[in-house]
Amino acid sequence: MNHNEIVLGIDIGGTTTAFAFVDKKGRLLADAVIPTQSQQPAKTLVARLHAEIEKMRAELPPDLQWKGIGIGAPNANYLRGTVENPPNLNWGASANLVEMFHGYYDLPVAITNDANAAALGEMYFGGARYMKDFIVITLGTGLGSGIVTNGELVYGANGFAGELGHTVVDPDGRHCGCGKQGCLETYVSATGLCRTVFSLLAEQRDASPLRDRSYQQLTAKDVYEAARTGDNIALTAFDKTARILGMKLADAVAHTGPEAIFLFGGLATAGDLLLAPAQHYLESFLFSPYRGKVRLLRSEIQNGSSAIMGAAAIGWHEIQKLMISTIADSPS
Amino acid sequence: MNHNEIVLGIDIGGTTTAFAFVDKKGRLLADAVIPTQSQQPAKTLVARLHAEIEKMRAELPPDLQWKGIGIGAPNANYLRGTVENPPNLNWGASANLVEMFHGYYDLPVAITNDANAAALGEMYFGGARYMKDFIVITLGTGLGSGIVTNGELVYGANGFAGELGHTVVDPDGRHCGCGKQGCLETYVSATGLCRTVFSLLAEQRDASPLRDRSYQQLTAKDVYEAARTGDNIALTAFDKTARILGMKLADAVAHTGPEAIFLFGGLATAGDLLLAPAQHYLESFLFSPYRGKVRLLRSEIQNGSSAIMGAAAIGWHEIQKLMISTIADSPS
Repeated sequence: MNHNEIVLGIDIGGTTTAFAFVDKKGRLLADAVIPTQSQQPAKTLVARLHAEIEKMRAELPPDLQWKGIGIGAPNANYLRGTVENPPNLNWGASANLVEMFHGYYDLPVAITNDANAAALGEMYFGGARYMKDFIVITLGTGLGSGIVTNGELVYGANGFAGELGHTVVDPDGRHCGCGKQGCLETYVSATGLCRTVFSLLAEQRDASPLRDRSYQQLTAKDVYEAARTGDNIALTAFDKTARILGMKLADAVAHTGPEAIFLFGGLATAGDLLLAPAQHYLESFLFSPYRGKVRLLRSEIQNGSSAIMGAAAIGWHEIQKLMISTIADSPS
Repeated sequence: MNHNEIVLGIDIGGTTTAFAFVDKKGRLLADAVIPTQSQQPAKTLVARLHAEIEKMRAELPPDLQWKGIGIGAPNANYLRGTVENPPNLNWGASANLVEMFHGYYDLPVAITNDANAAALGEMYFGGARYMKDFIVITLGTGLGSGIVTNGELVYGANGFAGELGHTVVDPDGRHCGCGKQGCLETYVSATGLCRTVFSLLAEQRDASPLRDRSYQQLTAKDVYEAARTGDNIALTAFDKTARILGMKLADAVAHTGPEAIFLFGGLATAGDLLLAPAQHYLESFLFSPYRGKVRLLRSEIQNGSSAIMGAAAIGWHEIQKLMISTIADSPS
């Protein structure tokens, strides 16, 4: 490995787009943020990024070798290089960002969604270094996931694999934004935790400060703080959330046999309220050959820089893949 | 590819062990069956196989090049080369068959379980040729599965991945032989279908010839034949089985995004009674980006020769992997 090599990581969000030059050890050499301007077409964002990147490059030490670009974006399809029907961007059915960047730079460019980026970030810079089989679960408003088997992200035949948030907990259960019922993310996510609190407020009679909150007002942070003071509704909500998470993670283990599962995002920081009981329930739902062999861990990537680290990791990973395929294709 | 190259496929069962020399196109050049003698240690079986193999080799055309050995066996661990706690063989906690064969032959040897062997058989000789992402489900007394992603079998960190039979349908559901409750194979398998019939006989009042069968007597074939004559209990049992299968296959799609799912084994031949409704339910449970993109198909490997074809495919696959890693390791 050449220590002068760097990649550009770009994290596209509905409001802002962050980008940074990052070396193989995960050090940020330069970084910046611009507004995404979600109503403008994708090619406008790419043109604006190009201008900013050129400014940034001019300030970098001249001996650095820029090797590639990694992009994290919602609804990204790695196999096609596209962002498709992004909910918070006015980009239409499909925007081929890889092609757009190739219009400016003759470098390897790869794009994937936020959860897959988080998985690669964990693999290159976090707790999954040296692991070939692991899963990263991102817990936010919804539940995302990135699955790695045999050292490679699982994209599936259509580029959309690893969407555990829409596996089925209960076919007659909660209505999901995706149009189905009973999806995992309607139970295990910041929103899911609040829905469970509301269902418990209806079922149980315990006094609770949470009874003063409207559905619109209630946040996962409120539930966390109530649980910390011993509130029974909040504690029960965390326990139910942990049980469902443990049950579905046991299914995930049966599918791909990870060495560890990393939890990432706001809810993951709830620590003993979620992680410890989820590990307990996971064990209880595991098929016996897997028991005692799968660790449930907090992500080792810091929350603030995670998206950009994930995007940089996409770049590094793409370069590595291209190197391997070049070697394998060379005449022996 | 050299057309004179052959592998030896060995399928170890509780009663008999079949073996055959098979070429890259799946043609059997010579085959035989011996009793497994399940009470004898593994090394006795390997010694007896060695003697039989030598006899068989003496009869083969001299220009054939024997390249490797593939073994399919219950409770096989590919990563360790072992058979561990096989339920129907008196082999103890762990028998390293790969090591034992290396005592006789200086050839690549690989071992895996029956469902993974079925998946490789489908990839080399069946309907999954040219597919990089697919799943094979074997429906027999239980439910086995082999998952392929990125062109590679998913073994996971411990060698036991792809055990969909023990994913959870209902945490408070039917008791499973594995000690858990509500495992998929307690609903979707020959045994599961019969259990569903018994539960329906209790719940519903329809007249049915199945009411004359004891639990010990009832077979999946009885249910199939009753369904063919329009028996409502049997038809409902197939529909419930198909719904649960469709629901859990939708989860499998969310995990690994296969291009197709192949059903193999007795129940798979029930055709329209299971496959058609399972495809319908699968679609209804799929997350929208996957809809209309996953085919549910019958295995294209013939039932009679499937185990030996799977074992041969393990051999071919191991040789291919060794070639790729040799090329990748060579100085460029």
